[in-house]
Amino acid sequence: MTATRVPQEERTRAMRARLLEATVELLVERGFAGTSTTLVSERAGVSRGAQLHHFPTKNDLVLAAVEHLTVVRGAELSAAAAALPGGPRRTRAVLRMLGDHFTSPVFTAALELWVAARTDATLLAAVAPLEQRVGRETHRLTVDVLGADESRPGVRELVQATLDLVRGLGLAATITDDASRRRRILDRWADVLDTRLQEAS
Amino acid sequence: MTATRVPQEERTRAMRARLLEATVELLVERGFAGTSTTLVSERAGVSRGAQLHHFPTKNDLVLAAVEHLTVVRGAELSAAAAALPGGPRRTRAVLRMLGDHFTSPVFTAALELWVAARTDATLLAAVAPLEQRVGRETHRLTVDVLGADESRPGVRELVQATLDLVRGLGLAATITDDASRRRRILDRWADVLDTRLQEAS
Repeated sequence: MTATRVPQEERTRAMRARLLEATVELLVERGFAGTSTTLVSERAGVSRGAQLHHFPTKNDLVLAAVEHLTVVRGAELSAAAAALPGGPRRTRAVLRMLGDHFTSPVFTAALELWVAARTDATLLAAVAPLEQRVGRETHRLTVDVLGADESRPGVRELVQATLDLVRGLGLAATITDDASRRRRILDRWADVLDTRLQEAS
Repeated sequence: MTATRVPQEERTRAMRARLLEATVELLVERGFAGTSTTLVSERAGVSRGAQLHHFPTKNDLVLAAVEHLTVVRGAELSAAAAALPGGPRRTRAVLRMLGDHFTSPVFTAALELWVAARTDATLLAAVAPLEQRVGRETHRLTVDVLGADESRPGVRELVQATLDLVRGLGLAATITDDASRRRRILDRWADVLDTRLQEAS
C-alpha cells in the first residue's frame, strides 16, 4: 500500500502543477475571458474528469493558479534578494529586481485576475485577501532589502510609493515595451531613496 | 433645408454622446467582457440600427467611448489645473489632483480597455496610439503645473515616475479602497518633489 501511495501522490501533485502552469500561460496569452477549463485541460494533457475533480470551476482554477505562481515568484524574489550586491549600487539593484518582478508573466496573470475580480463579487472575495497578503509580504521584503527603518516618519510611505511605482510601470509595460524608459525612472528613484533613507536613518 | 439640418446634427451628436456614456458606464460596472453592443443601445435608449450605423462593432464603440471620455477628462484636468492654489501647498494639490484623476471612472474604463487590448491585436493597434497621445498630454500638463524644468538632468524622470506612481495607485484602488493610504503616499512624494525640483531649478 505505502509503496504505491507515494507515487500516486506525486502524480497528483505533478498533474495539479501542470494544470496551474497551463492556466497561467493561458491567462497571459489569451486573457481571463479567453481562458477556459477545456483549454487548460487540453494544454496540461489532463483529462476533463481529473481537472474537474481538482478544480470544479474556472474561478477555482484561476485563483489556485495565481496563488501558486505567487508562491513560486515570492520564492524567486527572495532568492534574487539574497543575491543582491552590497555597496553604493544596492538600491538600484533592488529597484531593478522589483521592476523585473512587476513586469513578469505572473504580474500579467495577476492583472487579468484583478481586473476580472473587479466586476465579479465571488472572485473578488477570494482575490482581495490574496492580494493583501502578497502586498504585505512584498512590502516586508522591500523594507528588508533596502534596510529601511519604518519607525522614522515618512519611510513607510516611501516604501509604499516605491511599490506603487513599480505596479504602475508594470501596467504600462503590458501595452508598450519600455524597458529603457523603466530603467531610467528606476535609477532616478533609487537616487531619491538613497538620499531620503539616509536622511531618515 | 438648413433649418432642419441643424437639429438633425444636434440629435445625432446627442445620440452618439449617449451611446458613448452608456459604454463607459457598462465598462465600469460589468467590465469589457460583460459589455455588449445590445446592452449599450438599451441603456442609451438608441435603436440597434442607429447604434450599428454609428459604431458597427463593439471595438469601435469601446474605443470611441474611451477616446471621448479621455477628451472630457482631459478638459476637466485642465480646468482643475487652472484652479490649483499657488504657494507652498501647490505640489500637494497637484498630486491629489492627479491621484483623483487616476482613480476616476475613466481610469477604470481605460483599464478595462488596456487589459482587453493586451490580448486583442485589432484593439491594441487602436489603443496603443491613443494611450501614447494621452500619456504625452498628461505628461506635458504635469510639467506645466509643477513648473518643472525638464532641461535639468533627472527632472523628466521624476515627472514620469510621478505619473507611473499615480497609475499604480489607480490600479491598487480598483481592488481595495485606500484613499487615506493614497493621500499619505502622495503627500510624502510631494515633499520629495518639492526638494528635488527646487534643487534642479
